[in-house]
Amino acid sequence: MLAEIKGLNEECGIFGIWGHENAAQLTYYGLHSLQHRGQEGAGIVVAHQGTLQGHKGLGLVTEVFHNETLQALNGAAAIGHVRYSTAGGGGYENVQPLLFRSQTGSIALAHNGNLTNAIDLKLQLEAQGSIFQTTSDTEVLAHLIRRSQAPTFKEQVKEALTYVEGAFAFLLLTEKELYIALDPHGFRPLSIGRLGDAYVVASETCAFDVIGATYKREVEPGELIIISGEGMRSERFAPMRPRSICSMEYIYFARPDSNVDGINIHTARKNLGKRLALEAPAEADIVTGVPDSSISVAIGYAEETGIPYELGLIKNRYVGRTFIQPSQSLREQGVKMKLSPVRGVVAGKRVVMVDDSIVRGTTSRRIVAMLREAGATEVHVRISAPPITHPCFYGIDTSTREELIASKYTVEEIRQIIGADSLAFLSQEGLLEAIGRPDHLPLRGQCLACFTGNYPTNISRARLPFTAVK
Amino acid sequence: MLAEIKGLNEECGIFGIWGHENAAQLTYYGLHSLQHRGQEGAGIVVAHQGTLQGHKGLGLVTEVFHNETLQALNGAAAIGHVRYSTAGGGGYENVQPLLFRSQTGSIALAHNGNLTNAIDLKLQLEAQGSIFQTTSDTEVLAHLIRRSQAPTFKEQVKEALTYVEGAFAFLLLTEKELYIALDPHGFRPLSIGRLGDAYVVASETCAFDVIGATYKREVEPGELIIISGEGMRSERFAPMRPRSICSMEYIYFARPDSNVDGINIHTARKNLGKRLALEAPAEADIVTGVPDSSISVAIGYAEETGIPYELGLIKNRYVGRTFIQPSQSLREQGVKMKLSPVRGVVAGKRVVMVDDSIVRGTTSRRIVAMLREAGATEVHVRISAPPITHPCFYGIDTSTREELIASKYTVEEIRQIIGADSLAFLSQEGLLEAIGRPDHLPLRGQCLACFTGNYPTNISRARLPFTAVK
Amino acid sequence: MLAEIKGLNEECGIFGIWGHENAAQLTYYGLHSLQHRGQEGAGIVVAHQGTLQGHKGLGLVTEVFHNETLQALNGAAAIGHVRYSTAGGGGYENVQPLLFRSQTGSIALAHNGNLTNAIDLKLQLEAQGSIFQTTSDTEVLAHLIRRSQAPTFKEQVKEALTYVEGAFAFLLLTEKELYIALDPHGFRPLSIGRLGDAYVVASETCAFDVIGATYKREVEPGELIIISGEGMRSERFAPMRPRSICSMEYIYFARPDSNVDGINIHTARKNLGKRLALEAPAEADIVTGVPDSSISVAIGYAEETGIPYELGLIKNRYVGRTFIQPSQSLREQGVKMKLSPVRGVVAGKRVVMVDDSIVRGTTSRRIVAMLREAGATEVHVRISAPPITHPCFYGIDTSTREELIASKYTVEEIRQIIGADSLAFLSQEGLLEAIGRPDHLPLRGQCLACFTGNYPTNISRARLPFTAVK
Amino acid sequence: MLAEIKGLNEECGIFGIWGHENAAQLTYYGLHSLQHRGQEGAGIVVAHQGTLQGHKGLGLVTEVFHNETLQALNGAAAIGHVRYSTAGGGGYENVQPLLFRSQTGSIALAHNGNLTNAIDLKLQLEAQGSIFQTTSDTEVLAHLIRRSQAPTFKEQVKEALTYVEGAFAFLLLTEKELYIALDPHGFRPLSIGRLGDAYVVASETCAFDVIGATYKREVEPGELIIISGEGMRSERFAPMRPRSICSMEYIYFARPDSNVDGINIHTARKNLGKRLALEAPAEADIVTGVPDSSISVAIGYAEETGIPYELGLIKNRYVGRTFIQPSQSLREQGVKMKLSPVRGVVAGKRVVMVDDSIVRGTTSRRIVAMLREAGATEVHVRISAPPITHPCFYGIDTSTREELIASKYTVEEIRQIIGADSLAFLSQEGLLEAIGRPDHLPLRGQCLACFTGNYPTNISRARLPFTAVK
Repeated sequence: MLAEIKGLNEECGIFGIWGHENAAQLTYYGLHSLQHRGQEGAGIVVAHQGTLQGHKGLGLVTEVFHNETLQALNGAAAIGHVRYSTAGGGGYENVQPLLFRSQTGSIALAHNGNLTNAIDLKLQLEAQGSIFQTTSDTEVLAHLIRRSQAPTFKEQVKEALTYVEGAFAFLLLTEKELYIALDPHGFRPLSIGRLGDAYVVASETCAFDVIGATYKREVEPGELIIISGEGMRSERFAPMRPRSICSMEYIYFARPDSNVDGINIHTARKNLGKRLALEAPAEADIVTGVPDSSISVAIGYAEETGIPYELGLIKNRYVGRTFIQPSQSLREQGVKMKLSPVRGVVAGKRVVMVDDSIVRGTTSRRIVAMLREAGATEVHVRISAPPITHPCFYGIDTSTREELIASKYTVEEIRQIIGADSLAFLSQEGLLEAIGRPDHLPLRGQCLACFTGNYPTNISRARLPFTAVK
Repeated sequence: MLAEIKGLNEECGIFGIWGHENAAQLTYYGLHSLQHRGQEGAGIVVAHQGTLQGHKGLGLVTEVFHNETLQALNGAAAIGHVRYSTAGGGGYENVQPLLFRSQTGSIALAHNGNLTNAIDLKLQLEAQGSIFQTTSDTEVLAHLIRRSQAPTFKEQVKEALTYVEGAFAFLLLTEKELYIALDPHGFRPLSIGRLGDAYVVASETCAFDVIGATYKREVEPGELIIISGEGMRSERFAPMRPRSICSMEYIYFARPDSNVDGINIHTARKNLGKRLALEAPAEADIVTGVPDSSISVAIGYAEETGIPYELGLIKNRYVGRTFIQPSQSLREQGVKMKLSPVRGVVAGKRVVMVDDSIVRGTTSRRIVAMLREAGATEVHVRISAPPITHPCFYGIDTSTREELIASKYTVEEIRQIIGADSLAFLSQEGLLEAIGRPDHLPLRGQCLACFTGNYPTNISRARLPFTAVK
Repeated sequence: MLAEIKGLNEECGIFGIWGHENAAQLTYYGLHSLQHRGQEGAGIVVAHQGTLQGHKGLGLVTEVFHNETLQALNGAAAIGHVRYSTAGGGGYENVQPLLFRSQTGSIALAHNGNLTNAIDLKLQLEAQGSIFQTTSDTEVLAHLIRRSQAPTFKEQVKEALTYVEGAFAFLLLTEKELYIALDPHGFRPLSIGRLGDAYVVASETCAFDVIGATYKREVEPGELIIISGEGMRSERFAPMRPRSICSMEYIYFARPDSNVDGINIHTARKNLGKRLALEAPAEADIVTGVPDSSISVAIGYAEETGIPYELGLIKNRYVGRTFIQPSQSLREQGVKMKLSPVRGVVAGKRVVMVDDSIVRGTTSRRIVAMLREAGATEVHVRISAPPITHPCFYGIDTSTREELIASKYTVEEIRQIIGADSLAFLSQEGLLEAIGRPDHLPLRGQCLACFTGNYPTNISRARLPFTAVK
Repeated sequence: MLAEIKGLNEECGIFGIWGHENAAQLTYYGLHSLQHRGQEGAGIVVAHQGTLQGHKGLGLVTEVFHNETLQALNGAAAIGHVRYSTAGGGGYENVQPLLFRSQTGSIALAHNGNLTNAIDLKLQLEAQGSIFQTTSDTEVLAHLIRRSQAPTFKEQVKEALTYVEGAFAFLLLTEKELYIALDPHGFRPLSIGRLGDAYVVASETCAFDVIGATYKREVEPGELIIISGEGMRSERFAPMRPRSICSMEYIYFARPDSNVDGINIHTARKNLGKRLALEAPAEADIVTGVPDSSISVAIGYAEETGIPYELGLIKNRYVGRTFIQPSQSLREQGVKMKLSPVRGVVAGKRVVMVDDSIVRGTTSRRIVAMLREAGATEVHVRISAPPITHPCFYGIDTSTREELIASKYTVEEIRQIIGADSLAFLSQEGLLEAIGRPDHLPLRGQCLACFTGNYPTNISRARLPFTAVK
């Protein structure tokens, strides 16, 4: 069951714009700034003169789009998507936006999140004769809309949104309107901005900065926004609940220059580092962070402790989709891929190595060994999050529970497994206070499910919309 | 004249290996770690069973090589090359290694540097009937070798090396031997390592780390190394002169984890930052560096001054060869490409912005303006090198003298042009002392020509080898 | 309305095999021999170990399939399709076989023909919530099957087949069975053969010859054949009606080496030529045929009249999908594309030019002019079919009625329009007698609708299957 | 030695145009009509505003050139080339036109033929320091031109032409002029035409017809034509010798609609068939030809004997470079590739099978067996040429002498090997008289070397130009 749901998991980035003559180009730059959220595939759909046109492909934004393909996408409204590189699944047909044409109008869908009842909904829809084109959970929404007997398209969208469960941030483009929807718990970030008269929407605010747009506000949990020639209207498809925004966006996923729900990521991470320094200081000569997400944390840790911050680890910038993995034998001979230690920096030093998480432990063990081989005399590992003990069902591709090292071992056992001289995780309180949006505040909550197992939604059952309808 | 020479300019990375059954694969990983030295093209040639075989192409190493193409390159010896993205020139045929077959044996050439008399040599060779396949200065060496009447191939190579002038680091592979040559002044870095019984050679030592090889020593200026089944021999084609290694390798070109002529780059840059802090302190709230090369400098500056180091600027990681440049109108609307300011970090702050150089001034002006737009109240620019006043003829694609802002304006004038609140350059003494290989030491010198105009070689004349021969 | 239906029109070739370990390879050679039936796209789907896998693409069979793609298609059962190059429509998603996956099993569909009520069925299915992936009429069948509430898959297929009207030859592959169905009038050819223990099915028997298979029998109108591990069963989804096989298959569409419903095409065409010679002799020096379809006719005409047969027209063999059409100005300067006259053969001669049809008249006028320019003193046009006066709704992409020259002009008027010295069409009786399957024979009839306007099926209404269901 | 020379063998097609604004486009259509002369690669070079620009690639003309690549080739002068698909050699760099740039001007070369002393010339040039870019014999000419010390470019070309031996038809384009040269024996066809004010030159006249140009005259053996802004001049680089035009051009190589040295190919072949009928009649029911080259011959044979001509063999039109060859096991199961028998035509018949040559005998044996399997009761093989007993050194890729079946076996032995009921070859007299340019006519001779071993040039020695020069 977990494996099946996992198959649909994905973390992604979405971008939309309404009312600008260079809609496709701006979506290209917006997606480009969201590239860290997904490198498997990218796509753009534009609305132009009563039709939807799109282009998508496997690879990076710059691999999928060339000048001619982009030029061909005329129109003043567009949505775009970058897709996370999942191990097993994938394939061209799952690259978004998904485009569904019919003789009465088309819809394009871009989605970030994970629908926890997608499998069940799909089974029911298929039993009633629907044919699916993809293995993506996103397609379920299109079928629910098309099956709805509600009188207007907006009502059909609203009805469909009441059937899906889990975490979702949807952009839906028709020939005439742009719909924006965020799930009732607001797991994923989604912000609204303006660029002159145009409206923009994006998973992260860095996409606004890159195109020169101005941030306006967050999309609210349970909100349905409709943008058209008449401007922007806000409605609700579900009552507002306390927000459960994903902690991992702050810890490692979002870009340092983004503000997620109003909080700057670099600053949040630096605060995590400072708090970590107070909770778990170390006797050491240098502090180094695992690039890219832990650089800010390490700087904060160094600043708080006074230990110098150094570049002890280098990330190779060009490891992409087409990188040829070294064979097992070459790996054993010492061929490194993504990360190299800086021998000239760490040799003979006691090193504090700051990272954002330990999932299975294999990566941490490898980095610790790498630092020792490069001459580090001690390696003290500091993690800027509590131990991950439970899988995520809301769009972060962590792992099944069996694979999570922290669900089976104590901190001391993990220390031994990864070979560190000392190991410390940030406390839950430390996490909440450093980020500054404590759990108890109404409407400004934060999802801690992967640390606690307290899932904000019911993940064991799936609502059965069509049996009721029939 | 300058323009013509400039046409041949290129900064590149080279890698070679002898005596390992996975020669091509290891070259792939080696080149991959040298990717920052050139993104326009890449190639590998292997020697196998008495023939040379190669594959090359335009683009990144990971774009040029796929699993099948790499698997097809059998053999225990290989050389590889990554090529710098020059504006005008380029084209498939100039991608290296260049491979020249004849009925009596083949040679493959990989070159990093610039031959200052290439144009003249080529004119003379063509007048005598030679046909060139490329517009690269590297090809001149092949023709000089083939024209030589010396009795052995090694003598032919040596004779050819005496005709070429300028900066060069050559790898030359035949069916039986690997030749390694560095120009008499040693402008470019070139190191020798071992991987088990195999020999490796690379532009930077990071290539050794990535494949698990051990650093042995530098190639000496004027040295010709021949590696074959009988092992490695060292000879000279020119007397040793004081080394004039390129300062820019330390300042911005090499990777932070490389040691160039024994000095770690990250440490050298951090020292540049500390020295810069002493020479030109600033009243400010935060220090930020222009990524990637100035990060280490900024950390040093922050450490010395006690001003916190922050991520005030973000570099977009995925701007490559196929990135679609924004149109002029989009650029004016604020679309950014490579660099974004982190609004949440710089807003309301007095910022020290550390960079490695000012060439034409346009980039600096843009970054300063970007920081102000993002809310910086003051911007103090600190440069970790002296003003660049003279063009480079040794392989760094700076600019013609007319374009160099520091050749025409005072520091105060430049400050006004770039719109900074204050501006300071590192002194020449500061540069030499921070890096730690002062000019006066015999054999450990450093080229300062772009700061001083004192070129270590005669760049105005070209020796005419063939008239003498005829 | 006509235009809409026309949009779905297509002439194609289909091939299937069951029970041979090289199923995909044999399908490749089979499709290759059917390439004349469609050059726009090609595809193969195989059943292997409980799943369907496929590969398809735009272009010729040899462009779509390479060794690796073909090798990857393991399995002992396969169906394949070549698609006709329709002007407006097309696109990758319409290339067949269409593959529809669901959580309870997959189906692949390959279709030759045209469903005359596809538009109406699609409208009704969409109104009930179905989402279509293509603009092909073939997809309608998949939705009808999935919507059926019949208890077994076979019954679902049968029910679906009763809803569709028009001309169709379907191959349907599941993980466990191969279904073969021909419409109740048998408009399109479809034959069954054996290759050792394996079953094969193809649009034309030339596909059997090319793989060394033996012809067994025709698929009967209204027959549903199911091939599985238990062998081959024959059922009916509709009562047998007199066959209305398409006359155009004999006249120009099928390959000369195929037997269509038992009659060899080359022999049939030669008989058409002989009959034409008797009905419309000419005073002339040479007989020439428009390649390729009229070569056999011209040989028959020459044999009957004793006038020598010559190669007066040459077809350029390499005009494919990627051929660059000459600009209007180059065409006016005399640049020819597909057909060239042989000046050395026709100069100074009275020429009988044999062709298979006159649709809009423009091609005939061009060829007549071409022959005159090359020096022909007289050009006598002889057509091996009656005048085409009505559009085809059964899969031949003729034209709308307004475009058909013979629906508006007399033979004499057409002669003047095309600029011939004389013009004659074969009579309907001549056509039937020459081919040898006269209209009055029960079960061996022939569709003459494009010559007579007597359509064997009702083409004006569309059955509404789902209203009954609701 | 033979093998080495063979490596350089090639049959090709060349096309040139001077003085038309659509030079590249017209070259595209010209090459397209010459596609039968070479399918391995194609290329075009244009002269425009003082520079040469080109595009070339592996594959058919329509695969190599797309609209954009063709549009980019501006200029009023162009040369083009299609290259024969040789088994072993090949590769992108050998695709012509070859383009050699230098700082004093560029030259592009397109060549049809074979230089019999290329190996020796290349050895000498390399010994003197020349570096070759290709393994094509054509490149030798470029080096000879560049090495020449003659005062003008024209004199340099003339001098170079005196060094090369064998069969050659050269087009040479510079920024200012188009040079056309034919070897002193005129082995290969080469014709001049006009298109308005423009000059055109092509291997076959069918290229003129396809672009609407008018045939003017043949290029004469030993002639050097120079076309420039001042018009066309004719000079000689060698005295005229009796023409030895290749017999195989008439027998199987040229297109039926071409005139080669004034004689129409279809007519010549029909005459070969008539003569063959007189020399070797047969008791049979049908005559069939092996497509494409023997169709005309078979028609002539049928006309002379009165036996009906039928399509007994079908050639699959789409067997190209990317066709996947059937595995040995599939071939044994009866999978056919290029040729299929027409069962409905040959079953129960005594068949005369006309072909143009028997080289190794394997193809003939396969076709005879194929016809028998399809039901032919007798198979009488008639060959429209004398037995090939000697290899060709002038550009036809026959075989080494050891492989030629007719060099080792009598006609009766060959009949048994191929399994025919009877076998006859045309006589040498029959060949000459049917084509109509008997050997004894001065200046209108014909090369019969492959039938007789009497080579018009000395093929055992190679002139050594450079030793003499030095």
